[in-house]
Amino acid sequence: MPASQRTVAIIGLGLMGGSLAAALRGSGFARRFIGFGHREASLRRGVELGIIDDFSLDLAQVVEQSDIVVICTPTLVASQMLEQILPLIEGCADAPVITDVASVKGSIHATALRVAGEMPPGLVLGHPIAGSERSGVEAADAQLFLNHRVILTPVDGNDPQAVELVRAMWLATGAEVVDMDVDEHDAVLAATSHLPHVLAYALVDALAQSEASADIFRFAAGGFRDFTRIASSDPVMWRDIAIANKTALLRSVDDFAQHLQGLRTAIEAQDGDALHAIFTRAKAARDTFAEQLAERNKQGDQPI
Amino acid sequence: MPASQRTVAIIGLGLMGGSLAAALRGSGFARRFIGFGHREASLRRGVELGIIDDFSLDLAQVVEQSDIVVICTPTLVASQMLEQILPLIEGCADAPVITDVASVKGSIHATALRVAGEMPPGLVLGHPIAGSERSGVEAADAQLFLNHRVILTPVDGNDPQAVELVRAMWLATGAEVVDMDVDEHDAVLAATSHLPHVLAYALVDALAQSEASADIFRFAAGGFRDFTRIASSDPVMWRDIAIANKTALLRSVDDFAQHLQGLRTAIEAQDGDALHAIFTRAKAARDTFAEQLAERNKQGDQPI
Repeated sequence: MPASQRTVAIIGLGLMGGSLAAALRGSGFARRFIGFGHREASLRRGVELGIIDDFSLDLAQVVEQSDIVVICTPTLVASQMLEQILPLIEGCADAPVITDVASVKGSIHATALRVAGEMPPGLVLGHPIAGSERSGVEAADAQLFLNHRVILTPVDGNDPQAVELVRAMWLATGAEVVDMDVDEHDAVLAATSHLPHVLAYALVDALAQSEASADIFRFAAGGFRDFTRIASSDPVMWRDIAIANKTALLRSVDDFAQHLQGLRTAIEAQDGDALHAIFTRAKAARDTFAEQLAERNKQGDQPI
Repeated sequence: MPASQRTVAIIGLGLMGGSLAAALRGSGFARRFIGFGHREASLRRGVELGIIDDFSLDLAQVVEQSDIVVICTPTLVASQMLEQILPLIEGCADAPVITDVASVKGSIHATALRVAGEMPPGLVLGHPIAGSERSGVEAADAQLFLNHRVILTPVDGNDPQAVELVRAMWLATGAEVVDMDVDEHDAVLAATSHLPHVLAYALVDALAQSEASADIFRFAAGGFRDFTRIASSDPVMWRDIAIANKTALLRSVDDFAQHLQGLRTAIEAQDGDALHAIFTRAKAARDTFAEQLAERNKQGDQPI
């Protein structure tokens, strides 16, 4: 199927799905964009905004018309959508390529194995490392993925053409595409994203429940605001991620808790040398990371 | 002593001391600013920049000339400076008022009690909730305290005139001044500032020491950058704070660790309702805090 005739289906037209369609629209990657979702109002708005050409509330019809189906729902819903989509394409000669954008890959991979018995050749899981505090199709941003990383987790059973189609799609949005193992993806995301969210939620909740909470928030300042910004994230999305990535997340929580106890021991012993060594090591790692991130951002127009 | 003839001594001419002198210069609060410190180059630079009028490497001389002495060093050094300054003013009829800017108040209060036997009437401890990632007199900023909060921790033995002089000094910088109990100050700062720093240091160190650290930092993005920004803070300053505020900090660490274990239990049980309740409660508290902080910032020109 040449790009000039390609149809892309967006399952779930929120920030991610809307931004993907908006980014692909100008790229020549596809001719037509159709939406599916449970909120007809969002789909209508997507058409009004010119983000999608059409929509349907009939999943089978959407899948049948498409060359590539992108599941753009949160993690747990993505598994549910896959449960409905995989039977629709079973044994189908010209089945569309299926991909997703969920934050956890192992749980969706497991769903696919459970439903299809083996990894369907045309199912290529992916995860764009991009987002926004805003949500919904109104927040769709054609630049959302520009210079951001997208992790694909292809597996042995995948059709190489399907993998290349999904890769081409993300490259067309201006993203950088990286392949990774499913487990490695979930471990890396647990450490860099899921654990920090859990820590921020735990901190704010601990303070909010303390007796002095009024004073505490009254005297908190900019450093605290930055540190806890991610605790303002969507509770449903993060509930689902915490459940879906349980194994890797628990490992990260335990590793962190152990380090915290090490620091606690040094504080209790007033061991200045140990504290200085830990803080200096952490500062060096964080400064290096921040420099690399700034360097990466310089290559594009968008902050990551 | 009328303001037109007042002399202010700045002990330690770095970001805080330099900014305080710069802020007071245009305010009419004092006639003359003199510096003391261990780095003559910083003091010379302070004179060149027009931040102080003069400096001396003789502490007794500086104290003798001054109406108010502001110890602007980090926490542990502030205690050491107090050990040297208090004997100089003992029994002195026209002793200057002494104050400080350190992040922990209990340890400095304890030093004063140990050295002087009781709280000297003219020693009024304070803590401006302001800072910058920059340091040194070159980074001095006359607007640093504008619309920021300064906590004073006056005690029963204090001379009310001394308290009012320190209050007037901070008001002259454009700050809002709030009084607090010494222990309350240390508990609030442990919760809102010292604990978050410890968590950020612990997280970055845990990740840096993990086997997958290269990948972890490679795929970390903006949320992680904001969450860990405070791990780029000065290790010496934070070592000193962790030691000086040990008791309140350990209490905050333990309270946090207990909340984290509660979250861990909910993750392990895949208890969606519990996770959703905690995340929703935390988001509400954080959103309210962020709104209040934004409202506070709107009243001034400077971000807090």
